[in-house]
Amino acid sequence: MNTDPNPWQRVSTKIVYKNPWMQVREDQVVRPDGSPGMYGVVEVKDSVGIVALNDQDELYMIRSFSYPSAVWFWGLPGGGGEDQDAETAARRELLEETGISAADWRKLGTTRVSNGLLTERMTIFLARQLSFGERPLADDAGLIEQGRFMSLEAIDQLIESGEVDDAQSITGVYLAHRWLARR
Amino acid sequence: MNTDPNPWQRVSTKIVYKNPWMQVREDQVVRPDGSPGMYGVVEVKDSVGIVALNDQDELYMIRSFSYPSAVWFWGLPGGGGEDQDAETAARRELLEETGISAADWRKLGTTRVSNGLLTERMTIFLARQLSFGERPLADDAGLIEQGRFMSLEAIDQLIESGEVDDAQSITGVYLAHRWLARR
Repeated sequence: MNTDPNPWQRVSTKIVYKNPWMQVREDQVVRPDGSPGMYGVVEVKDSVGIVALNDQDELYMIRSFSYPSAVWFWGLPGGGGEDQDAETAARRELLEETGISAADWRKLGTTRVSNGLLTERMTIFLARQLSFGERPLADDAGLIEQGRFMSLEAIDQLIESGEVDDAQSITGVYLAHRWLARR
Repeated sequence: MNTDPNPWQRVSTKIVYKNPWMQVREDQVVRPDGSPGMYGVVEVKDSVGIVALNDQDELYMIRSFSYPSAVWFWGLPGGGGEDQDAETAARRELLEETGISAADWRKLGTTRVSNGLLTERMTIFLARQLSFGERPLADDAGLIEQGRFMSLEAIDQLIESGEVDDAQSITGVYLAHRWLARR
């Protein structure tokens, strides 16, 4: 990882907006070119995404609704970390959203969701040796409509057609491809 | 694309925070399960990312600093759309950040940056038949330290090592892989 210094100077900071899921911080700064300015940062909890792979190398996808974008989409299970360690959060999210438990967990990577605005880091896990409860324990208050296993090739097609269109899920699919190619 | 109805009802809405780059909207809602609640949405302009490919199928990457995450990273050129149409914005961002002009442009895809919080959509373009100005025209006030062409294999390695770690760039790299595999 890079250890070069932060080229920005923070002169002062204050929280200017807050709700239960995020807060907005306004920093008075000196920019890398020496000019003064303000930077608004949205602070949110870190999150997790889960690549749940069955014995046929199919991946479990769920269909849910993005309120900010007002669209239905197919994507990876996952969600907010809620102050748990990432693997605990991933186990909880997978069980809640899909009813799946997994015996084998490994971390595929940690990604930043937004370069310019959010603090959110999403840890993506690979879950294998899957077993199923009778039904999802919770589904985020009706937000998840359905779920099913899909081959990577089918998911690639859904990305091409725009039915999988969030950068978080596409990043997980990329990491799944890489893991399978290396195995 | 999916045409199922929005399972949320919006009862009222107001802007509760605003700066030059974003605004926060609080919606009073009825959730899909019928319970009342509030949803905070961060409204930002759409953005663009550019996969600039040279005649050796190498991709131009830049090294810049994420203020919200306080890290240096390698990633794709790109940035805010600033109310331009996406291709115009992509041509401007590529030229400003790298000094590169391209004769051949095509859209690789449009992705949502965040499922739960942001309205941002990022359009990712493939730029080819590249030519170089003497130097980048601007570099976002000193935010970009260096840039160079890298092979896809080298970028895959940087993703594995965490030096390319933003979901926006990884999504662009995924789309570049797919385009090259189909060509």
